[in-house]
Amino acid sequence: MGKLRFEITMSVDGFTTGPDPGFEHPLGIGGDRLHEWLFGLRGFRERHGDTGGETGPDNDLLEESFNATGAIIMGRRMFSGGEGPWEDDPNADAWWGDDPPFGVPVFVLTHHPRETVTKRGGSTFTFVTDGIEAALEQAQAAAGDKDVGIGGGASVAQQYLKAGLLDEMLLHVAPVLMGVGVRLFENHLDDGQVELECTQVIQSPAVNHLRYRIVR
Amino acid sequence: MGKLRFEITMSVDGFTTGPDPGFEHPLGIGGDRLHEWLFGLRGFRERHGDTGGETGPDNDLLEESFNATGAIIMGRRMFSGGEGPWEDDPNADAWWGDDPPFGVPVFVLTHHPRETVTKRGGSTFTFVTDGIEAALEQAQAAAGDKDVGIGGGASVAQQYLKAGLLDEMLLHVAPVLMGVGVRLFENHLDDGQVELECTQVIQSPAVNHLRYRIVR
Repeated sequence: MGKLRFEITMSVDGFTTGPDPGFEHPLGIGGDRLHEWLFGLRGFRERHGDTGGETGPDNDLLEESFNATGAIIMGRRMFSGGEGPWEDDPNADAWWGDDPPFGVPVFVLTHHPRETVTKRGGSTFTFVTDGIEAALEQAQAAAGDKDVGIGGGASVAQQYLKAGLLDEMLLHVAPVLMGVGVRLFENHLDDGQVELECTQVIQSPAVNHLRYRIVR
Repeated sequence: MGKLRFEITMSVDGFTTGPDPGFEHPLGIGGDRLHEWLFGLRGFRERHGDTGGETGPDNDLLEESFNATGAIIMGRRMFSGGEGPWEDDPNADAWWGDDPPFGVPVFVLTHHPRETVTKRGGSTFTFVTDGIEAALEQAQAAAGDKDVGIGGGASVAQQYLKAGLLDEMLLHVAPVLMGVGVRLFENHLDDGQVELECTQVIQSPAVNHLRYRIVR
């Protein structure tokens, strides 16, 4: 069985979006800046139907993450595109279009039972209504020996962290101070500090990658 | 003329203290965890009157910072030990005792004029009442070719950052999620994103060191 991993890009001051994330600006206003390191990479472009793009350590890490991931868990709002017109519609389609970039089964945490949605390229969306542990079990069964990735949002990762189920965090730290936005973790950890062990650091001009094992 | 540098230890989730920092717990409850990497180092122990201690990359960086710093600027509360009995007493003595660990002139931002206080080992405290630029001028004159360090708190660093006067940030990222506490920068940067350039990454088991140049 693989690990349960959470991977996210944040600013040096700890923001994962710009201000006012929502349907129009899923990453918040100015939040695209955080993900600039990603957009030009060959691995990212490939999975979004484009050709070409940069190779190098950032791309290697991205490819490694893609290849290691056998299933993904995400929150309801991550599926439907954040707060916005689709959020309250239990039958809203995926914000990710007909050809989502995942290529693996995705398990969506929701309160609304719904049939599995199948998209192109191996991305299926299965809706899990009986909690995070049930979603993890299903995702692990689908992933086989590979890792299960938490696709976000941060609150979903936080729930797995609090439940002691998260194995690893991979943080892509973009060289910018956002000043405002949504934080990696808001003040939710009322049950004490969580010890980490840094297992990998990759430095590149566009972004630093810090990989942590959850020790607890 | 040297650089204006801000150096601080923070958790992976961006906290620089535990909850409720104050006179009794200057680093907040549980906040000592953040600075564990520091307490055992030879350079730290030396400057606190102890002998022995660890050497290695963390200590090298600490020594390098000490040696590069010719003067320090700090806020009033940093001088008197945070919120607490001394905070409202304009004549309160330094929280740092008779033998402070600085060894260089310290310039304290305050609204209360006061004579310079001289302590052992070359630490003097000069009180500057006419603003951050005046404090920087005095500190630079005292530092000569060396850097001026911002001794904190984070709000002082934020003021210099907003004024476009900060050259460098050195972040010591401790492998822990604090969950609660004081953030590196609270939501104060209403004047937009600040671009950084990462100029150095040092990985060690106890803490990762990330050095950034402020590009703006």
